[in-house]
Amino acid sequence: MTDTLIDRRDLAFQLYEVLDTASLTARERFSEHSRETFDAVIETADRMAHDKFATHNSAADKDEPRFVNGQVEMLPEVKDAFRAYAEAGFIAGRYDYELGGMQLPESVMAACNGFFTAANPGTAGYPFLTTAAANLIRVFGNDQQKATFLPHMLSGRFTGTMALTEPHAGSSLADIRTSATPTDGGHYLIKGAKIYISGGDQSITDNIIHMVLARIKGAPAGVRGISLFIVPKVLVDADGNPQQRNGVALAGLIHKLGYRGTTSTALSFGDDAPCHGYLVGEPHQGLKYMFQMMNEARLGVGFGAAVIGYRGYLHSLDYARERLQGRRLAEKNPDAPQVPIIEHADVRRMLLAQKAYCEGGLALCLYGARLVDDQHTHPDPQKRLEAGKLLDLLTPVMKAWPSEFGPKANDLAIQVYGGAGYTREYPVEQCWRDNRLNPIHEGTNGIQALDLLGRKIWQDQSHGLQLLMQAMQVDLEAATTARCQQWALSLSETLQQAVKVTQSLGKTLMQDSPERVLANASVYLHLFGHIVVAWMWLRQANAAAKALADAATDDDRHFYQGKLQAAQYFFHWELPTVAQDLVLLRNQDDTCLNMQADWF
Amino acid sequence: MTDTLIDRRDLAFQLYEVLDTASLTARERFSEHSRETFDAVIETADRMAHDKFATHNSAADKDEPRFVNGQVEMLPEVKDAFRAYAEAGFIAGRYDYELGGMQLPESVMAACNGFFTAANPGTAGYPFLTTAAANLIRVFGNDQQKATFLPHMLSGRFTGTMALTEPHAGSSLADIRTSATPTDGGHYLIKGAKIYISGGDQSITDNIIHMVLARIKGAPAGVRGISLFIVPKVLVDADGNPQQRNGVALAGLIHKLGYRGTTSTALSFGDDAPCHGYLVGEPHQGLKYMFQMMNEARLGVGFGAAVIGYRGYLHSLDYARERLQGRRLAEKNPDAPQVPIIEHADVRRMLLAQKAYCEGGLALCLYGARLVDDQHTHPDPQKRLEAGKLLDLLTPVMKAWPSEFGPKANDLAIQVYGGAGYTREYPVEQCWRDNRLNPIHEGTNGIQALDLLGRKIWQDQSHGLQLLMQAMQVDLEAATTARCQQWALSLSETLQQAVKVTQSLGKTLMQDSPERVLANASVYLHLFGHIVVAWMWLRQANAAAKALADAATDDDRHFYQGKLQAAQYFFHWELPTVAQDLVLLRNQDDTCLNMQADWF
Repeated sequence: MTDTLIDRRDLAFQLYEVLDTASLTARERFSEHSRETFDAVIETADRMAHDKFATHNSAADKDEPRFVNGQVEMLPEVKDAFRAYAEAGFIAGRYDYELGGMQLPESVMAACNGFFTAANPGTAGYPFLTTAAANLIRVFGNDQQKATFLPHMLSGRFTGTMALTEPHAGSSLADIRTSATPTDGGHYLIKGAKIYISGGDQSITDNIIHMVLARIKGAPAGVRGISLFIVPKVLVDADGNPQQRNGVALAGLIHKLGYRGTTSTALSFGDDAPCHGYLVGEPHQGLKYMFQMMNEARLGVGFGAAVIGYRGYLHSLDYARERLQGRRLAEKNPDAPQVPIIEHADVRRMLLAQKAYCEGGLALCLYGARLVDDQHTHPDPQKRLEAGKLLDLLTPVMKAWPSEFGPKANDLAIQVYGGAGYTREYPVEQCWRDNRLNPIHEGTNGIQALDLLGRKIWQDQSHGLQLLMQAMQVDLEAATTARCQQWALSLSETLQQAVKVTQSLGKTLMQDSPERVLANASVYLHLFGHIVVAWMWLRQANAAAKALADAATDDDRHFYQGKLQAAQYFFHWELPTVAQDLVLLRNQDDTCLNMQADWF
Repeated sequence: MTDTLIDRRDLAFQLYEVLDTASLTARERFSEHSRETFDAVIETADRMAHDKFATHNSAADKDEPRFVNGQVEMLPEVKDAFRAYAEAGFIAGRYDYELGGMQLPESVMAACNGFFTAANPGTAGYPFLTTAAANLIRVFGNDQQKATFLPHMLSGRFTGTMALTEPHAGSSLADIRTSATPTDGGHYLIKGAKIYISGGDQSITDNIIHMVLARIKGAPAGVRGISLFIVPKVLVDADGNPQQRNGVALAGLIHKLGYRGTTSTALSFGDDAPCHGYLVGEPHQGLKYMFQMMNEARLGVGFGAAVIGYRGYLHSLDYARERLQGRRLAEKNPDAPQVPIIEHADVRRMLLAQKAYCEGGLALCLYGARLVDDQHTHPDPQKRLEAGKLLDLLTPVMKAWPSEFGPKANDLAIQVYGGAGYTREYPVEQCWRDNRLNPIHEGTNGIQALDLLGRKIWQDQSHGLQLLMQAMQVDLEAATTARCQQWALSLSETLQQAVKVTQSLGKTLMQDSPERVLANASVYLHLFGHIVVAWMWLRQANAAAKALADAATDDDRHFYQGKLQAAQYFFHWELPTVAQDLVLLRNQDDTCLNMQADWF
């Protein structure tokens, strides 16, 4: 078992050598920051994640929250960790100084949060959800709502939740039924039931601010009739001081496969007592508001999946270096000492695949965080717009790719451990269980695929796609060594084929029913995701090849050699798998579309 | 949640329409049987699995065996289930009538055991291990040993275990250290420690017969110095009546990710009291004996992986038919009723993939069981020999392929359920956890890959490989419809490329160090496995196409259409993925071989 949550050397490489995060300090918003302050915040996050979060990661999994007399009982360490996170200012890390924030870039905050998730995804869920809920109020709430709720959420006195899903509707938000009836008092009365609400109750804070999607009586059917409400667990006065209990009740806890430290709740609204809700923004705009925050939420899921994968990788790497077993194939003397299993090529294969998946996923999500920064703070307004479009396009990939390949890495980590990996005495099985949530929540990966091929690709006459190709072109041209140029060539050829197949899919989409094209949306997502991550590996390889030439120490040389070898793994072993995607998409394969329910 | 453990219609198709299992009754050993007796035994297994095993599958997972005062406490239902299995004669199902057996073919017994594993893999472990241990004594024990132990194992009075693994050696059996010292009394004194011994203690029977690998003092180093011993938990007289306790002690229970109902134990031998062991067969031949039983053990693992995958598939199919969510893409009216999720093409993709993996895996393992039957009972001695060679060759595939793709199916089953699949309120997460053991035990899949490419392919001048190609040729030629012929062509072309790459790998293996070739053994295993399973799908498709033409009912037509569509899925979506394997193998890609431990 290793203490390392994320390899700091790798993170510094990705942030400063690949992404030039230090250049952000030239922007007005970050002008009081420097690489030193960024590193100091990251150091704080790493240490706190280690000292306050990692300590009870296994305990919170084994001794999960319990539903006792209508209340949640959970480990006291979770509250301590939450407090430490809030007191260090991380909930408000991205916020303006005047709101008590640190005005940190998303690039740095995402990196910080990576440590907390790597240490303990269950406990990290509470502050992350609080930030997300606070963001909705900050952007769409009125001044009164902001004054009442934000200070207490940012200080960690209240937590927050996102209450979307309903039992009968699942992913189909168009079908939510929770109702909101206006009253003369300015508030609405909320009635209905929600399910799978993470952090919907806890024993950390007295109050919880639920951001609830509901339908105002008489609203249009479907997604255009949904509004967003603030529904506090405890009603508060204008300054946020708690008054009486509101009519939202914990109906039960859901027992999950992993991520057990984060409560997953069924909530009822207005069943036993009236439930007050406060409309956020305009009526019927709730889903639009929610989706404007969705890029960051989905990026957060991808980031989490990448770092849980990364954590398992580091554990299995540590184990493979220590564990003695067997001999090299060429060794014929049975009395020769056993070797560490990292000496076996097949074990190196499993480690290298994990490295390629997790460092690639991390690179993708850090790139996404940088797009968030550019969208909000790039000095050129045109670049801000473009960053937003690129972010929109890449969001389904940044959610889905790490959440497919992070769990795959965790699966390989178990296999490296062998029998030990299958026991609860070792940490990798928990990583694997925890990470299995990520392909499901915040829109299943099947829904991400529909979002990509059904909408994002074509948005604004495919402007996002053109921007992506321009961005990739820069890195294709930056390849200077023979190895990098060869990979750039593979990427460029694959990209051309993908563009061609995209055009032909676009034609069919226009002409016919979309069903035939969208039946293979998951295949397209795999193709697109692999191309984007190959690009991330080319960027890393370009940076590593350049740095290798000047590397002064063995440690540095080994680090850059490792990056190049992982890039080679991705280009030799992974990128070519899209050949099969291209064939299926070119043929507009109808195997799944034509399968009949009766034939199963 | 569905009650169906394995689709009986599918099983009948595979056993009788694809494999002609009924023809076995023409052989002398099975001459008292008929299709009716086979079906009656299968019916008994299905019913008993349902009534006695499935009932506590979830309970035994949640309330796993505990180590209390040096003893194991476990659910009483496990004992009842074990007794029912033993009393129905299943432990001795394959044995001669004179040993109290039923003289059932492996084909039928494997199918029967499929129901028990599908119902409850944890509880099924105890009788299966007992059969395996009894087989070792039956084949290699002396008459006294057989008389003393076999009747009590076959009746279920004693259970059995296979005690191979040691803490410091893991997969490297050459390094086991447990020692055996001869005494004047004819027995040996055993001293050492074993780990991950399944069923190493329990509260089902008073006695347990451990089959232990140990090294007689002065034996040669490595695998050629290992002997096999019978080590009973309680010493017995010549008739098997229990006398005093033997010096084998339960050192602890290991807490697993899944398969929790089967105890996984650490055992100590001769620590607190002398531990008697009885040599089986000749000294230093223990590993050879073990490996002669390994084909069947590994086939059992593959079978288990296929049916746990199958069980998850049936659950998710049931859920997809019932669960209403969203609308078809073409439906623009938000007030239209929601549809069952099986109507969404991406859900059908996930169901069809599961069907292709699990029915393909089942076909493979039933084919393997038939080879076991042919090896032992084919009337032509030449065919017996050939069946044994084919079985040898295919064993690593039959172990590894279902144990890769069964868990993959379980992963898809969770995804079909969405959020519900991630909860312990639904059954698919347990299937996924249980099945994760199968790529690890009985030789990890990495070791299967080395066995295939390092040994089995080349054995007897590749006679096994030639037999395989002959057997495939029969089915390639039997393809009569246009669809089947197209698939036969794909398979034939892929096979030719695989043969070519195999020859070139063989040359390098002879000339150079084997390391470069064997570094990619796992890639070869994937290639080889996919070709073999594609063949299994061609066999099913040929049978289905023929039967479809004469099908009399809608149910039959739907069944055969489903088989053909699943075959199409395998040929369009799965078989082409080996293109990437072929490239890596042709290039003798050295990415993993050349990765240095320092570079990680």
